[in-house]
Amino acid sequence: MSVARVTEISAVSEEGFEDAINQAIARATKTLRNVEGAWVKDRNVMVEDGEIKGYKVNLEVTFVLEDDS
Amino acid sequence: MSVARVTEISAVSEEGFEDAINQAIARATKTLRNVEGAWVKDRNVMVEDGEIKGYKVNLEVTFVLEDDS
Amino acid sequence: MSVARVTEISAVSEEGFEDAINQAIARATKTLRNVEGAWVKDRNVMVEDGEIKGYKVNLEVTFVLEDDS
Amino acid sequence: MSVARVTEISAVSEEGFEDAINQAIARATKTLRNVEGAWVKDRNVMVEDGEIKGYKVNLEVTFVLEDDS
Amino acid sequence: MSVARVTEISAVSEEGFEDAINQAIARATKTLRNVEGAWVKDRNVMVEDGEIKGYKVNLEVTFVLEDDS
Amino acid sequence: MSVARVTEISAVSEEGFEDAINQAIARATKTLRNVEGAWVKDRNVMVEDGEIKGYKVNLEVTFVLEDDS
Amino acid sequence: MSVARVTEISAVSEEGFEDAINQAIARATKTLRNVEGAWVKDRNVMVEDGEIKGYKVNLEVTFVLEDDS
Amino acid sequence: MSVARVTEISAVSEEGFEDAINQAIARATKTLRNVEGAWVKDRNVMVEDGEIKGYKVNLEVTFVLEDDS
Amino acid sequence: MSVARVTEISAVSEEGFEDAINQAIARATKTLRNVEGAWVKDRNVMVEDGEIKGYKVNLEVTFVLEDDS
Amino acid sequence: MSVARVTEISAVSEEGFEDAINQAIARATKTLRNVEGAWVKDRNVMVEDGEIKGYKVNLEVTFVLEDDS
Amino acid sequence: MSVARVTEISAVSEEGFEDAINQAIARATKTLRNVEGAWVKDRNVMVEDGEIKGYKVNLEVTFVLEDDS
Amino acid sequence: MSVARVTEISAVSEEGFEDAINQAIARATKTLRNVEGAWVKDRNVMVEDGEIKGYKVNLEVTFVLEDDS
Repeated sequence: MSVARVTEISAVSEEGFEDAINQAIARATKTLRNVEGAWVKDRNVMVEDGEIKGYKVNLEVTFVLEDDS
Repeated sequence: MSVARVTEISAVSEEGFEDAINQAIARATKTLRNVEGAWVKDRNVMVEDGEIKGYKVNLEVTFVLEDDS
Repeated sequence: MSVARVTEISAVSEEGFEDAINQAIARATKTLRNVEGAWVKDRNVMVEDGEIKGYKVNLEVTFVLEDDS
Repeated sequence: MSVARVTEISAVSEEGFEDAINQAIARATKTLRNVEGAWVKDRNVMVEDGEIKGYKVNLEVTFVLEDDS
Repeated sequence: MSVARVTEISAVSEEGFEDAINQAIARATKTLRNVEGAWVKDRNVMVEDGEIKGYKVNLEVTFVLEDDS
Repeated sequence: MSVARVTEISAVSEEGFEDAINQAIARATKTLRNVEGAWVKDRNVMVEDGEIKGYKVNLEVTFVLEDDS
Repeated sequence: MSVARVTEISAVSEEGFEDAINQAIARATKTLRNVEGAWVKDRNVMVEDGEIKGYKVNLEVTFVLEDDS
Repeated sequence: MSVARVTEISAVSEEGFEDAINQAIARATKTLRNVEGAWVKDRNVMVEDGEIKGYKVNLEVTFVLEDDS
Repeated sequence: MSVARVTEISAVSEEGFEDAINQAIARATKTLRNVEGAWVKDRNVMVEDGEIKGYKVNLEVTFVLEDDS
Repeated sequence: MSVARVTEISAVSEEGFEDAINQAIARATKTLRNVEGAWVKDRNVMVEDGEIKGYKVNLEVTFVLEDDS
Repeated sequence: MSVARVTEISAVSEEGFEDAINQAIARATKTLRNVEGAWVKDRNVMVEDGEIKGYKVNLEVTFVLEDDS
Repeated sequence: MSVARVTEISAVSEEGFEDAINQAIARATKTLRNVEGAWVKDRNVMVEDGEIKGYKVNLEVTFVLEDDS
């Protein structure tokens, strides 16, 4: 048997959505062990003075819990 | 780039929904730094012996992660 | 074992949403025994001639059935 | 026969959700004729430095179109 | 207090989804003042004779209304 | 590249739903140029004194924006 | 203030969906007083031996409760 | 033509979800005639002092109305 | 025990939605054995030059699999 | 790169939901190669003369396509 | 007033869904105090070489926060 | 009249989501004639040992059925 947790994170990138996703995964794998994957839940574009200021993604990240945690 | 987490909390107030929301935010900002906002996900009324015993809200709270956390 | 029923009611108040909810619960507990709670499903504002005429809520009310009913 | 349009607006109030709803309706009825009602679609709390800075609602407003518009 | 409107637009690009999003935002900010952001609602691929002919996105764009508008 | 807008309208007919849809499209094409299509979002029956008084449909209408608009 | 109940009914007609809706409303208004309207929730076609045997609709019917009920 | 009603019930069992479903159906068929079936809408586990105290299911039960009811 | 498959088809008719549904069912029963029924998932109106060019429905069709297939 | 298909099947068992799921998977793996898994979409109980006649599940089954298929 | 958190966990069992749920609750109550309950969000069957390898559930677990935490 | 089918496929790419979409469409148009388009239903990131191993998309592909098929 294995038990995992699902946690939601969001990330904003100035480059684009795929960059935001990659950054969010990099951040998640730095602090969480055994990340298995992530589901892309939402995407937003942030605009200021008529210019795109950021691409924001919300991800639901799944990571397996270890036995003695 | 910035990365944030989204966590769900619920609160019950005897006063009403807006009080429950305010209490939940107060609790969240006491233990979480950099809370940005919250989305009201669900509302329930709890009843006992024909009387309202509590107003319960579920909130999805977003807070920005700091770089070295 | 216990069995409950869920029924949907709506109420309109001229005061506001919390008043409509309170009225709806008062009405439900007057005719239904063992009301446990209610989930706020929808909220609408009714407008006439540029003025708010009512705040309407839809609630899903749960009440426990008694054994011999 | 009658034809209506549905448009989504959002409003932010420092007081609370019901104030935000009332303000949004007041704004809508000032620029749109024959507003019939509004459905409360979403609610968000905006937080800054650990304090609530605004209550935001999204409403879907319905208004009847006049014949020669 | 501030009031905003939400409007849905779609855009088709031959390049890809991010290009379609960028074009849609560019178009929106040209005709609408004070655009705050956009939520990516839907994505479709259009195919003809076995070849991709377009990448289509639907966006819900939010823009703040000015006081005297 | 092409950009389109999506707007929601509703129509009430005394005849039936298909008539309401046809009327709504007729109204939309009279005031909006380049209507491409519509998605049927919701249907309601309106009743008064035990008789059906109207069939109401909500449509999301898509129309292509012209270049210089 | 007024309080209403919402109840779900379904009807099957051999003629078509609009006939099923009309029959369902006729049935609802015969046993329920003060029916205000109905929302069309779902539609199904029933098939047997390669032939359509029925058109089935599910409706959520709203009716106003009287004061002393 | 036939007309049916849909009503939501919930049941709690200490044994498990299938037992809760069976109990709910048994209860429904005892008080309602002509039950046709039920859709499993939601499942919850109730916990107290670190132990499972109940398995709760919500069902939407459909039963055919008889002609003279 | 019986096992069935669910497949989604869409049909466009120039006459109306009920005609499109009937045509889709006729097509499904010609190529699939043991069709049991269909759920109406979506409806769209297709418009060209200000005129309705087609009524489109999406159906989820269920058909029972035979033992040796 | 790998490409998979998702297909929906339903199964009815007289024993219970887990039996229906197991039967559906057994049937799917007999006719489809490389089944990866299935998502439980819906559950229904079928009732006749006040007795449960079947437990029905709808599954979305994913299976990997082989290169030359 | 009380404040609770909601967190999503998943568990895989080789036995069946109820076993997976029981295991997930056991794991949750071992590391979280004051678990109140859990909502069954999703169920998946995992298949390998034509055999079921695991039953996976996703649960949203609610646990009450203590005052000084 | 025309009848189309909708089928769901998924594809995994090591490059990114747009590559996965393009590959899925290429695969679909190789085995299915008259593909009209596809709706992007879901996106997942697959992670292993702290590294992204694949970008997975689920698409609902629509293709027109020919008369004598």
